[in-house]
Amino acid sequence: MPSNPTAAILIIGNEILSGRTQDVNTKFIAGRLAALGHRLEEVRVVPDVAERIIRAVNELRAAYDNVFTTGGIGPTHDDITSECIAAAFGVPWEKHQESWDALERHLGREQFNEARQRMAMLPRGAVPIPNSVSIAPGFSIGNVHVMAGVPRIMQAMFAGLETVLARGTPIAMRAVHGLRVKEGSIAAGLSAIQARYPQVDVGSYPFYRESGSGVAVVVKGTDVEALEAAIGEAESLIAAEGITPVRGEPPV
Amino acid sequence: MPSNPTAAILIIGNEILSGRTQDVNTKFIAGRLAALGHRLEEVRVVPDVAERIIRAVNELRAAYDNVFTTGGIGPTHDDITSECIAAAFGVPWEKHQESWDALERHLGREQFNEARQRMAMLPRGAVPIPNSVSIAPGFSIGNVHVMAGVPRIMQAMFAGLETVLARGTPIAMRAVHGLRVKEGSIAAGLSAIQARYPQVDVGSYPFYRESGSGVAVVVKGTDVEALEAAIGEAESLIAAEGITPVRGEPPV
Repeated sequence: MPSNPTAAILIIGNEILSGRTQDVNTKFIAGRLAALGHRLEEVRVVPDVAERIIRAVNELRAAYDNVFTTGGIGPTHDDITSECIAAAFGVPWEKHQESWDALERHLGREQFNEARQRMAMLPRGAVPIPNSVSIAPGFSIGNVHVMAGVPRIMQAMFAGLETVLARGTPIAMRAVHGLRVKEGSIAAGLSAIQARYPQVDVGSYPFYRESGSGVAVVVKGTDVEALEAAIGEAESLIAAEGITPVRGEPPV
Repeated sequence: MPSNPTAAILIIGNEILSGRTQDVNTKFIAGRLAALGHRLEEVRVVPDVAERIIRAVNELRAAYDNVFTTGGIGPTHDDITSECIAAAFGVPWEKHQESWDALERHLGREQFNEARQRMAMLPRGAVPIPNSVSIAPGFSIGNVHVMAGVPRIMQAMFAGLETVLARGTPIAMRAVHGLRVKEGSIAAGLSAIQARYPQVDVGSYPFYRESGSGVAVVVKGTDVEALEAAIGEAESLIAAEGITPVRGEPPV
């Protein structure tokens, strides 16, 4: 899949690193990126510390075609993403008149206090990401897309981004699973399938469920013909173990 | 919390980057590390690509006191963590006799095929991590602790590690929440609390639940006295908004 754009996610959040919060934004963004044909190559979680955010933004934006950040864009003292992005890009962090006016209109002059006025400060050159559910100030600057940490707001922002992001060839996935199959028994066969279809990724994932244990084989890539051929061979491999292969992911 | 050991998590997994799998290992390890008094400073997710794994291992083990990896230690072609760790440390990847014998005993000679024999290969100098639920070959080498990706196996390995990891001062957390509280209204007060108690981290997290929306204030740190004082002040801040503050996290 060499021609698809690459992507990274940067999660800015003490709440993930402390174990307080289960991150669910990665899975959402990852799934959407696959559908858009972007290859997600890395995820990083860093604390709400300016120097750490700035360094991660600069490393990731240099390494990948797009960077998606979540978290740290609210009105409180721990919301420092926006000013860190300005520092990372070496541009002023300044009043964004359009956002200022919209916030003032939305909140009323009395509620538009100093803390909330910070939300109208953006890096120079930033373009706001419209979103239908909140006043949280997401924005894009260069190849960095800055979104809220709250999942439903992040998702609304991503929907806005989807209308402007470049499209690649969608990355498709096929799965087959077999109950009671042991990874070690089909490993050599899987390795041969991967060798025959180097243009797709063949993954093997043992699962342990109340309904039963086994192995799921997952093939992903942009070449649908190779994908179908590879998953068909994985199916035969499971059948050769005397087990009935079942298309799709194992039941939850 | 400057005297506590620092930590990073490295998740090796195409299945996370493709959006197929919801990572739950980060939250588990993060919570346990906080209890052990280790400061989790970074999480990275990288694909099953040797060069990427090696680079991440070397960057993280240089930057943090401990690195915990998950994923890629099974018998299939996409399980390359162990040999990558050997490459990262610049040591041979070789047959570990004790693991070899245990696997052969456990599986029987006939089942102990070439694919499974790979699981008995470890970086020279690695020490196996005992675990009660599987034959998956976790190990520690230097400050890097290599665990399975399957959550229940990873958790059993982490339990083994906990008996040998250094202890720091446990990182405690206190939370208070207020329904209908707006972040922007308490932002200035929270900022003042953070300034008065620089030894703890004061975080503000809006929540949106079917049972109601509001803000949770979370304070964490090793100084329990400061923690109690800070959360008490956050409580007063919410009360000053005319809202009854409730100790603990908001209801799910």
